[in-house]
Amino acid sequence: MADEFDVVVIGAGPTGENVVDRAVRGGLTAAIVEERLAGGECSYWACVPSKALLRPVDLAGEVARVPGLELAPIDVAAVLARRDEAVGHFDDSGQVGWIESVPAEFVRGRGRLDGPRRVRVTLADGGERMLTAHQAVVVATGSTPAVPPVPGLTEANAWTSHEVTATSVVPERLVVLGGGVVACEMAQAMHGLGTRQTTMLVRGDGLLSRMEPFAGELLAQSFADAGIAVRTGTQVSRVERPEPGGKVTVHLPEGPVLEADELLVATGRRPAVRDVGLGTVGLPDNVPIEVDDSMRATGVSGGWLYAVGDVNGRALLTHMGKYQARVCGDVIAARARGEEPPALRDLADGYGAPQVVFTDPQICAVGRTEAVARADGFRVRVVDYDMGAVTGAYLMGDGYRGRARAVVDEDRKVLLGVTFAGPGTAELLHSATIAVTAEVPLDRLWHAVPSFPTASEVWLRLLETYGL
Amino acid sequence: MADEFDVVVIGAGPTGENVVDRAVRGGLTAAIVEERLAGGECSYWACVPSKALLRPVDLAGEVARVPGLELAPIDVAAVLARRDEAVGHFDDSGQVGWIESVPAEFVRGRGRLDGPRRVRVTLADGGERMLTAHQAVVVATGSTPAVPPVPGLTEANAWTSHEVTATSVVPERLVVLGGGVVACEMAQAMHGLGTRQTTMLVRGDGLLSRMEPFAGELLAQSFADAGIAVRTGTQVSRVERPEPGGKVTVHLPEGPVLEADELLVATGRRPAVRDVGLGTVGLPDNVPIEVDDSMRATGVSGGWLYAVGDVNGRALLTHMGKYQARVCGDVIAARARGEEPPALRDLADGYGAPQVVFTDPQICAVGRTEAVARADGFRVRVVDYDMGAVTGAYLMGDGYRGRARAVVDEDRKVLLGVTFAGPGTAELLHSATIAVTAEVPLDRLWHAVPSFPTASEVWLRLLETYGL
Repeated sequence: MADEFDVVVIGAGPTGENVVDRAVRGGLTAAIVEERLAGGECSYWACVPSKALLRPVDLAGEVARVPGLELAPIDVAAVLARRDEAVGHFDDSGQVGWIESVPAEFVRGRGRLDGPRRVRVTLADGGERMLTAHQAVVVATGSTPAVPPVPGLTEANAWTSHEVTATSVVPERLVVLGGGVVACEMAQAMHGLGTRQTTMLVRGDGLLSRMEPFAGELLAQSFADAGIAVRTGTQVSRVERPEPGGKVTVHLPEGPVLEADELLVATGRRPAVRDVGLGTVGLPDNVPIEVDDSMRATGVSGGWLYAVGDVNGRALLTHMGKYQARVCGDVIAARARGEEPPALRDLADGYGAPQVVFTDPQICAVGRTEAVARADGFRVRVVDYDMGAVTGAYLMGDGYRGRARAVVDEDRKVLLGVTFAGPGTAELLHSATIAVTAEVPLDRLWHAVPSFPTASEVWLRLLETYGL
Repeated sequence: MADEFDVVVIGAGPTGENVVDRAVRGGLTAAIVEERLAGGECSYWACVPSKALLRPVDLAGEVARVPGLELAPIDVAAVLARRDEAVGHFDDSGQVGWIESVPAEFVRGRGRLDGPRRVRVTLADGGERMLTAHQAVVVATGSTPAVPPVPGLTEANAWTSHEVTATSVVPERLVVLGGGVVACEMAQAMHGLGTRQTTMLVRGDGLLSRMEPFAGELLAQSFADAGIAVRTGTQVSRVERPEPGGKVTVHLPEGPVLEADELLVATGRRPAVRDVGLGTVGLPDNVPIEVDDSMRATGVSGGWLYAVGDVNGRALLTHMGKYQARVCGDVIAARARGEEPPALRDLADGYGAPQVVFTDPQICAVGRTEAVARADGFRVRVVDYDMGAVTGAYLMGDGYRGRARAVVDEDRKVLLGVTFAGPGTAELLHSATIAVTAEVPLDRLWHAVPSFPTASEVWLRLLETYGL
């Protein structure tokens, strides 16, 4: 077995897989190293299982708003069974087979940089393999949940996204630390699947603090209506869990202690830069790997090191990592041919990554928020519209609540950002992603007619409100 | 009460209302004449009630594909009650109030042209009023269902879209004549609400013959699975209904007769040009009113007559009529100021109007089909993708079936048309509408990253399949 390749990728999540796919399509040979499961966090412990858990909850919410429909209580075992199917029962043979069909070599083990262009792999049996890359080494190790330094938290073996998405039980009482995307989605999922007492403890002012403020407010209102408690401006002083797997006690600076059957920590993620051997090539191992728009690490001479996905800290989103991976794989292949195509660059992260939060209401955003656009120095005009006043949304169900915002660059008359908050908006987002990314002028968007009666007609209302 | 206005509009459907809104916003005075209900066909007997009937059926289809969810039988009375609410209980006072708030004058009666710039209104009490327009008369009378010359059909008092959307009963056995959008949507609605035997009689080869062929095929497969019978290549030779409201017998050229409790005729619509007085201004009254891209009638001297919506035959779709109305109202106001802004033109109909068919699967298309694009002389490449292979679609439910097609102009590398056929694609269409209308280059679309895991990721797959 040859241990020399054009490209060696560390990490076989979706980003690493896409690098390999693109590089091999470009005529190169490749190996990809993965310690755990090929397919990565996304396939087994993040996007896929979380969406599998959220889909029935989302639909139940939709059904509840439509007169004439009535659901039986959700059969949680069936939901968990489909989740298990969606994650392939934690068997990655399909993904490994796909990698081998690229073709690329799949190496199961822990990969670490070992000086320029070399990756040392610690195999499962304790053996070692040294892989050498002629063209490039790509780090695609993703990220790991960040656990805040709360006394007792580590000892409590609290859930992270990893455990909650893989759970086989729905806790009676759940405390969630955090107010970001994972916190909100998993609070929604567990509550919808039967948790009777869900309490979110949020350090900041509200939910989804990186989105437009109204998004988090709408969601908080919906959570309140559903009986999910959200406490903002809250810090946890101490956690106790005397018996493993037993009750958890959460101490707050003031007020009574909270008792719960499980505790979920969803307070952000950290790029997985430790234990990748970055020190062997002169890079720090406690910050994201800085890359240029071709995904090449800026701090390494020779231009052979790349980093894609969460580990470079640009946007901790699967789809953006995959996009970066497409850029990266194509760039490496082009450079191997002595070419430097200027179009092969990460433009999308600069515009502001699109994101869908699969809560009820769904929160969907792309580009810059008003605050970010102003901070970036744009001359901004903001247009808001009540989505419940759109006929297509009203027809989705009683009491539809939602709101849309367009952030307009007044100098160029293009959209800098768009946010849709409302049920059934997840697939609507891509219209905004195209408009923002392609910088379609407003007077051209005016001719893109939304079909009646869809919720997409909010586009018309936004443009009308703007004055077109 | 002054009977002279800058603009007189005949027909207060959504298109007429939009003309008035725009013209008045542009500084003109306006009157709008309506014999029936302000709000028009769309609000009471078409889009709005049909979607109100289809929404619970659509959701029930979604629920059936999600393990862990189980619906009780649909409460049809509740569905009909919400439909009644959606159509405002056939009370147009809200719409009239809106027109008056524009402000514009609402005239209840039958409006007919009476020579240049004059509209004679026959009032409900038999009286008459003559309205004179300084700037423009706009015909916005819409369309009426076309009933084919089948012996016995008129006498049978069969349903059209008008009656089926307003129904207070769901027939046990329903025969549907036609295979277009209304036929498919209403077959789906009635079947979903309890019709036990639904038979579609289609003259042509398949359903939705103006869409990409695979769309109708997918829908026919879905109908077959659901127990809706579709007979293609079928002509009806005779219809009998001896007792009003009683059983209907449908005779076919071969095979046994069909018995049903109701018959729905959905074989297209005709522009409502009869009885509008077109003869008084020298226009034929048996063909659509031909207009230029500013919505001005081409066959009338003086340039004072306009026609928007179904009556001009461009695209028999509410949203396109409303779009034409925005163009028209702005154009009239601009011309009244002596301006001629070239941007105020109907561009969208030329690209190919977007349309959503709210069946299961939803069928959504914009722009040209492959066949139309080739007939129009474009150098075309077609890219297809199985939507069921998109992770975001798979996560929507078991056995997701769908297909997407992009029709690429190989010379300009832009999209000429896009079709999505699959559950939950209605809101996805607008992304394609923007891409087609704004002629976003493919290599720019490549940077518009769909969020994971949404069905929108089919965009990525289409571009990958194309070779990007």
